[in-house]
Amino acid sequence: MKTKLIIALTLTAGSLVAVAQTNSLSATNQLGSDAKSASSNVPGQQYPKIDSERHAEFRFRAPNAQRVQLDIGSHKYDFTKNDQGMWSVVTPPLVVGFHYYAIVVDGVSVADPASETFFGVSKMTSGIEVPSPGEDFYDAKNVPHGEVREHWYYSQTNSAWRRCYVYTPPDYASDPTARYPVVYLQHGAGEDERGWSTQGRVNFILDNLIAEGKAQPMIVVMDNGGGSALFAAGGRGPAGLMGGNNAPSGTNRPAFGRGDGFFGGPAGRFPDTLLNEIIPMIDSTYRTIPDREHRALAGLSMGGMQTRMIGLAHLDTFANLGIFSGGSISTNDITDMASFKQKIKLVFVSFGSVELDSRNRSGFSGRGPFAGDPRVATEGLKAAGINAYFYVSPGTAHEWQSWRRSFYHFTPLLFQNP
Amino acid sequence: MKTKLIIALTLTAGSLVAVAQTNSLSATNQLGSDAKSASSNVPGQQYPKIDSERHAEFRFRAPNAQRVQLDIGSHKYDFTKNDQGMWSVVTPPLVVGFHYYAIVVDGVSVADPASETFFGVSKMTSGIEVPSPGEDFYDAKNVPHGEVREHWYYSQTNSAWRRCYVYTPPDYASDPTARYPVVYLQHGAGEDERGWSTQGRVNFILDNLIAEGKAQPMIVVMDNGGGSALFAAGGRGPAGLMGGNNAPSGTNRPAFGRGDGFFGGPAGRFPDTLLNEIIPMIDSTYRTIPDREHRALAGLSMGGMQTRMIGLAHLDTFANLGIFSGGSISTNDITDMASFKQKIKLVFVSFGSVELDSRNRSGFSGRGPFAGDPRVATEGLKAAGINAYFYVSPGTAHEWQSWRRSFYHFTPLLFQNP
Repeated sequence: MKTKLIIALTLTAGSLVAVAQTNSLSATNQLGSDAKSASSNVPGQQYPKIDSERHAEFRFRAPNAQRVQLDIGSHKYDFTKNDQGMWSVVTPPLVVGFHYYAIVVDGVSVADPASETFFGVSKMTSGIEVPSPGEDFYDAKNVPHGEVREHWYYSQTNSAWRRCYVYTPPDYASDPTARYPVVYLQHGAGEDERGWSTQGRVNFILDNLIAEGKAQPMIVVMDNGGGSALFAAGGRGPAGLMGGNNAPSGTNRPAFGRGDGFFGGPAGRFPDTLLNEIIPMIDSTYRTIPDREHRALAGLSMGGMQTRMIGLAHLDTFANLGIFSGGSISTNDITDMASFKQKIKLVFVSFGSVELDSRNRSGFSGRGPFAGDPRVATEGLKAAGINAYFYVSPGTAHEWQSWRRSFYHFTPLLFQNP
Repeated sequence: MKTKLIIALTLTAGSLVAVAQTNSLSATNQLGSDAKSASSNVPGQQYPKIDSERHAEFRFRAPNAQRVQLDIGSHKYDFTKNDQGMWSVVTPPLVVGFHYYAIVVDGVSVADPASETFFGVSKMTSGIEVPSPGEDFYDAKNVPHGEVREHWYYSQTNSAWRRCYVYTPPDYASDPTARYPVVYLQHGAGEDERGWSTQGRVNFILDNLIAEGKAQPMIVVMDNGGGSALFAAGGRGPAGLMGGNNAPSGTNRPAFGRGDGFFGGPAGRFPDTLLNEIIPMIDSTYRTIPDREHRALAGLSMGGMQTRMIGLAHLDTFANLGIFSGGSISTNDITDMASFKQKIKLVFVSFGSVELDSRNRSGFSGRGPFAGDPRVATEGLKAAGINAYFYVSPGTAHEWQSWRRSFYHFTPLLFQNP
C-alpha cells in the first residue's frame, strides 16, 4: 500500500512539471500587447492576462510583503513590486490548457483573489486557462447542450450524504422513452466529484462530439472516489501547491497524515459504494441501458487506478475501461484470457507525453499498476486480440489538458457495437 | 442612479454587522470541548471548529507574518501566534447561519485554504456554516430529492455564453407529463447564479417543504442578474471583505470603478435577458406552466430591487413577487390599483431583524425602493386588499440566513390558488 501511495504521489508530482515551456527567468519575459484577461478570472478582474505567445502576467497587491512568488507547475517565479505596492510577474510561455496555481506571500501559499477557484490539491485552488490555438473541442459551441445535474443521495456504506454530478445528453428530455449507456468517470487524488465537469469540461466535450456524430449520446456519472483530503495534512507538494491550510510551501511533513489516503477512508469504501449504491441508484433514476456492454468505468490518475482495480474484478459489471494517467493493463494481469476477450469491449490507456517521457527516462521502473511501459502493455493486449487503444497527449503532463484530450479520444470508441 | 448605488452599498454593508453577538475581545473567548469542525471546511481540515455556544476557532500557519486577523462581519479579530508559527483566534459567539470571512495577513485579505469558497463580494470567498439548534429546514434530510441542473445557453442580448441553475422537484422525472410553476430567483450584488443553490440551499429547502406537503412542487431558475463585479475594483467594504484582488482591506477607493454596477453592464441588460431569452428558453426546455399566475419573480438585495423594478413593470408576466432585503412596494408605487389588485397574486417582503432595526434607527430615510418603513408599506398593501406578507428573520442581518428563511416562508405561499 505504501508503494502505491508513493507511486501515485510521484505521478501527481509529474502533473506540475511541464507547465512552463522554458525555464528562462521571468525578468526576461514581456507581456505582448495582444494580451487578454484569462477566462478563468472572476468578473471584473483584468489580471492574470495571457498573450498570443502564452506569456502570462499575474498581479497581486501586498504593500507590506517582503517577497511574493507565483507557484505554478514545478516553478516559482518571483514577483517584483512597484512603488504603489503592486507586485507583478510575467511568466515564460505556458503550456496550453488548465493549470492550478498559488501565490506565495512571505512563505504563505494563498489563492489569487482574481481567479475562480477549483477543488484541487485538497483545497480550493486558483486556476488559469491557457488558450490552445486551433484546439476547441472543449469550448462551448453553438450546438445542442446537455445538462450537468447535481444529485444528492444518502449512502449507507458511508453513513453520509453524498453528491454526484450527472451529465445527461442534449436529447435526454426530448424523447422520454430513450435509454442511454453510462460512463462512470472518476477524479484524481486531492480532487473531488466537481473536477471532471469544471476543470475537465466533460459537458462541452460530449456536446460537441454528439453534435458532430462522433460519439453516441451517453450519460456520464461523476461521483466522489475519495482521496480528496490526501494533501490536506500539510504535505509538501513539488512546488508547495499541495500544502494544506497550515502548511506553507517548503514544510516537509508526509503528505498522508490526516488525509484519507488512496485505499482507506472514503476511497477504501468506494468500490462498495460504486457497485452497491451508485450504479443501482443511477439505473433506477435515469433512463440507462443497465447492462455491462453499455457501461464504462474510467478515471484519471487515482481514478484510473480505481478503474483498473475495480474493472478487472468486475467484468460482469463493466465491459469498457478507460485509464488516463493511471497505469495500464498487461496480459500478465489477466488470469483467464479467453473470458477476458469475451467480456471486454474496450481498454483505453492514455498518458501525457511529458509524464510518459519522464517515466521512460526512469526505465518504467514502477510497480503495481505502473509496472512496465504502458504502450508495450497495451500493444500486448492488442496482440492478444483485445480491442485496446493507447493515446498520448502531445506536450502535456499529469494535468487536465491530458485528461480532456483522453476523454475526447475515449468516448467516440465507446458503445459503437455493443 | 448614484443614490441607488449608495443605498445598495449601505444595505450590503449592513450584511456584515451582526455576525458576532458581542464585541468582547477574542482573548476572553475559549473554545468549548464539544467543538466540531465546520461543515463548510474542505475534507481533511479540522479548523475552523465551532462549539455549542457558537464560539469558533480559526487557525492559520504563517511563521513570518507580523499580524494576522480574522475578518468576519463588521469585526476584525487578531490572531495570536504560537512558537510553531501557528496563528489562532477564538471568536465571540457567532450568529447562526452562513457568513463570509477572510484572513488578513499583514494587511492582505486572502481566503482561508481550510474552507470551501463561495462566490461573494465579487470573488471566491471563504465561508463558515454556523449550526442553528433546532433549525434544520435547509439541511439534507431523508426525503425525495430534486436536482439542480447546470444549463448553458447562448445569449444574443449579451453576446455571451451564460449558465443558469435550474432546480427541478423530486417527482419531475417520474411523471413525464406533469407541468410545474416556476420561480425566477435572483442573487445579490457581488454574487452570481451559484449563490442560491450553494449559500442559499434552495434545493434542500424545497425538497423538505415539498415532502411535508407545505409547498407545491415547483421549478426554480437561478440565473445571473449582473452586478457580480461590483466589488472587484478594490472598493473598501465595511470590514475590508469587499476589496478586490488588488485592494487590501483599508484602501478607500470607490467600490464601483471597474465593476459593472447595478444598472449598467450585465445588470442593465438583465431585464431584457430575462424577459426575451431566459423565460422563453425555460418554457421551451422544461415542463412549465407558462402563464403569469404560475410564475414568480424573487430576489435578495439587488435581486429584490430587480424584482420590484421588473415585476411592477411586467405584471403580465409575473403574478407573484418576493423582495428579500431589497426594499418594499408601497401603494404610492402603484398607478392603477384596480388593475394591480386584479393581476397580483402575492407580494412578499422580508428583512433580517438586525438590518431592519438599523434602518429603523435611521428613521427609514432611504429613497427609491427603500423609501419609508417596509412593514408600514406592506401593511398599506394589505389594507388596499392585496395578498401581501411581511416577514422578519429574527436576529439576522443582510445575510444568507435571512434569505434562506425568507425563501422558506415565501414558497409555501406560492401557487396555492392560482
